[in-house]
Amino acid sequence: MYTFRDCQDIINTELERVFSNKDPAGLYEPIRYFLSIGGKRLRPSLTLMGCNLFSDKIDNAIYPAVAIELFHNFTLMHDDVMDKSAIRRNKPAVHKKWNENVAILSGDVMLVKSYEYFSKCPEGIYKEGLDIFTGIAIKVCEGQQFDMDYESRTDVSIAEYMKMIELKTAVLIAGALRIGALSGQASPYSAELLYEFGRNMGIAFQLQDDLLDVYADPAVFGKSGGGDIVSNKKTFFLVSALKSKNTGLVSVIKEWLGKVEFDNDEKIREITKIFDELNLKELISERIDDFFSSGLESLDKVPVPDNRKTELRNLVSALLERKK
Amino acid sequence: MYTFRDCQDIINTELERVFSNKDPAGLYEPIRYFLSIGGKRLRPSLTLMGCNLFSDKIDNAIYPAVAIELFHNFTLMHDDVMDKSAIRRNKPAVHKKWNENVAILSGDVMLVKSYEYFSKCPEGIYKEGLDIFTGIAIKVCEGQQFDMDYESRTDVSIAEYMKMIELKTAVLIAGALRIGALSGQASPYSAELLYEFGRNMGIAFQLQDDLLDVYADPAVFGKSGGGDIVSNKKTFFLVSALKSKNTGLVSVIKEWLGKVEFDNDEKIREITKIFDELNLKELISERIDDFFSSGLESLDKVPVPDNRKTELRNLVSALLERKK
Repeated sequence: MYTFRDCQDIINTELERVFSNKDPAGLYEPIRYFLSIGGKRLRPSLTLMGCNLFSDKIDNAIYPAVAIELFHNFTLMHDDVMDKSAIRRNKPAVHKKWNENVAILSGDVMLVKSYEYFSKCPEGIYKEGLDIFTGIAIKVCEGQQFDMDYESRTDVSIAEYMKMIELKTAVLIAGALRIGALSGQASPYSAELLYEFGRNMGIAFQLQDDLLDVYADPAVFGKSGGGDIVSNKKTFFLVSALKSKNTGLVSVIKEWLGKVEFDNDEKIREITKIFDELNLKELISERIDDFFSSGLESLDKVPVPDNRKTELRNLVSALLERKK
Repeated sequence: MYTFRDCQDIINTELERVFSNKDPAGLYEPIRYFLSIGGKRLRPSLTLMGCNLFSDKIDNAIYPAVAIELFHNFTLMHDDVMDKSAIRRNKPAVHKKWNENVAILSGDVMLVKSYEYFSKCPEGIYKEGLDIFTGIAIKVCEGQQFDMDYESRTDVSIAEYMKMIELKTAVLIAGALRIGALSGQASPYSAELLYEFGRNMGIAFQLQDDLLDVYADPAVFGKSGGGDIVSNKKTFFLVSALKSKNTGLVSVIKEWLGKVEFDNDEKIREITKIFDELNLKELISERIDDFFSSGLESLDKVPVPDNRKTELRNLVSALLERKK
């Protein structure tokens, strides 16, 4: 069986080839830069590992896997412009290192290139795989729109938030696994189970991100937390807190949301105190556990020998720091 | 045979369906707006007319034709952001009516939707057609990059300029016709001839645009000219003038290019005077005639009865105001 590390290596080797020696440099150099500054290659690795569940030969899955990683990086490049995020993977974002036009156009061509890459995959997978891919891509754009819509709202429900992260984050992880299953010639039933595994894990990953922003140990997490709090980002915490029945706390939060000038550390400290009072850390941890368990249940049902599932189980458990 | 008008109607009817009742409204409303403010539907009509050359049944060509129009509109929406153009088809551009983020994300989803639309076309055309489509899409992005690169250069050669407009404008028109031919089950030889017809006409259309900006009668053209001159746009005129051996005139132009404050009408008048002195109107008209003739020669060679070609000949002649 291929490990996560094996899959990362395969993807990185392939990614280096995609844009080598391409003209015009103004278009392709930003893409080479963006792909070179890291990234876990989680989604394409899930495609390869999803394939490997059903087949020892994973070659069929490499092209769609690379397509998925290119698509993912296209979304990041454009999201950085839209969110005005200056830093990506501890390096300047493309629109900062170059400019916004470069980030828009290089992102565009990366999206088209993802389709070019997908088209290299075998005939038997091509049409169905591409339909899944396109369906996911539309959902991811819709998720980003909901995310932007929610920025200016203080009445976002938890259900709306969960739907948004499903679209923006989880369906791509789910789809990566489904396309992997398809590449490994899995049955529709198995492919659906893998999709559900990925969808649940994808939601859990995003909730974990929300959690780590507030409660991670900076020494372990590698960056200082609270960025979501400073920027008023609608996370599970903020959405839940705003829906609290404790109107006193809600008005304190709303006051913070409205402030233009403030001390970052003070804001993080005060808002975190409210999250503590509302027991949101426990609430989100329960939710993560629930999605993690539901995801594993789907994986359990996939009709292949259990030892083929070890790598996938290890991976999601490590990412979520949960016992499998 | 279907006329241009018939084809426009088919495309407009189909386009109205694509984004009706789609949520989130923030994502799809700008697209509905953009598609509703007009546009000649030239490219998708060429796909239908290209198909109709070889087949009386043009149903096969409708989905790829719509895909091509969606792709074209995606490029316009993003180009308007990149070029900071406030007006599109006499209406506010999307990034002005809403904002830049909306124009970026709605453009993105329009590109993905173009692939979704393409995927509805019949099995026999799908793979080959989509490869052509993706190849064109990459070239169009490359053309836009060259166009942006040239903004800051005063040493662009005419060959570079011609290559840029081929990529940015002509290959999409050529590809629209090739995909039409494919949909009509034309031979590869015929498809290639139609591609060449389109490539030549596409270059001629762009040169004609350059010409009309300087020399069109505003009463006929519908907008006052000289916009390209005011904005220092690298057109055939400016590129040719900067390459002139008349160093005196070249330095006058360079002086104008460097000015930050000026009277628009004066700049248009003075620069046009230089174009006149260099006989550029005659030069560009000859070039247009050459591309027009070469394009028609390719169409002439397509092995179908001559009367099937009448609509296409009438269309390009009318668009270029040339005798067929």
